[in-house]
Amino acid sequence: MATGDPLRVGILVFDGAEELDVAGPYEVLTAWAQRSALRPSVLTFSPDGNGVRCAKGLRIVPDRGIDDIGPLHVLVYPGGEGTRALAADEEHLAWLRRVRATTPLVTSVCTGARVLAAAGLLAGRPATTYWDAFDDIARIDPSVLLDTEARFVDDGDVVTAAGVSAGIDMALHLVARLESPAVARVVRRAIQYDPAPPV
Amino acid sequence: MATGDPLRVGILVFDGAEELDVAGPYEVLTAWAQRSALRPSVLTFSPDGNGVRCAKGLRIVPDRGIDDIGPLHVLVYPGGEGTRALAADEEHLAWLRRVRATTPLVTSVCTGARVLAAAGLLAGRPATTYWDAFDDIARIDPSVLLDTEARFVDDGDVVTAAGVSAGIDMALHLVARLESPAVARVVRRAIQYDPAPPV
Repeated sequence: MATGDPLRVGILVFDGAEELDVAGPYEVLTAWAQRSALRPSVLTFSPDGNGVRCAKGLRIVPDRGIDDIGPLHVLVYPGGEGTRALAADEEHLAWLRRVRATTPLVTSVCTGARVLAAAGLLAGRPATTYWDAFDDIARIDPSVLLDTEARFVDDGDVVTAAGVSAGIDMALHLVARLESPAVARVVRRAIQYDPAPPV
Repeated sequence: MATGDPLRVGILVFDGAEELDVAGPYEVLTAWAQRSALRPSVLTFSPDGNGVRCAKGLRIVPDRGIDDIGPLHVLVYPGGEGTRALAADEEHLAWLRRVRATTPLVTSVCTGARVLAAAGLLAGRPATTYWDAFDDIARIDPSVLLDTEARFVDDGDVVTAAGVSAGIDMALHLVARLESPAVARVVRRAIQYDPAPPV
């Protein structure tokens, strides 16, 4: 894309996407958009542009569809039970490979890595995923160098996060990397992200 | 409600609700519903039953409206810019007072406390809210005993959380309280909630 194009972030939503996999990065990245000198735009899009029913039942109406999302700088691929079908959908995998070729930064949350692996995007690369999906990823592509401890793995043009809530941490990392740690700290403050799990 | 009724949780959504205020508790409580002996049902509802546009632009289609949500055991009231209008809407405040009288547990996330305060539900009680909203709550109801340090405040039949991401912690607390800490730990594991803010 030409220099000066606004930074475009697309978050894929689909039937069976895990709610927090979507909403965690969405919250972080839209909070960033409101505060960033880079003026990123953050859009949701679904395969066919229609509304989706997420894994736990939440219904989301996306901004766009695959056919009209346009070129992206950053793709966020959430996880959820719906990734099982998408990882077996050859047409979708072909789309993802095409997107990969033109998108500087491809990211996944949780079992979104299942689809990246099925498309061959993680071959020979370090990556992470949901704690319950390591075996599945290894079966799909034994060459993936799975990191079972990391909250997220930044391998340059591909960044993968651990399960569900890890998408929040990954998205803050993306803000730090794409703009600055100082701005990421402002975003962290905006969402009052001082986590204190009570159990 | 009669003994034996399934435990019913309602999460209010509205125009200008903050995305993660909604999705954090939704994720925790629906993950709980899938694993709980109490078999809770978790539903979203909007004032008029129609779809809403959240604070950062995410569009959600709720399960129900105020008129057909039915009796609840737990109400979750998220925050977001939309709470400014709702806190000034006398009809909505009257509805909230009626709900309060029949709902054993009323909870808020972030600036959802603004609406609870405007309805008089926090009078003389300890409570918390978003870090940037303490002055506003004190102006609405000076009798609220604001806790500016807590991640959430459990005052028995009213539980209030700090800003945005604090709804995740509060919801885990609700699971621990309504069922058990052991089940809450299972839910925490399910959403891989081992937060590690990178900045």
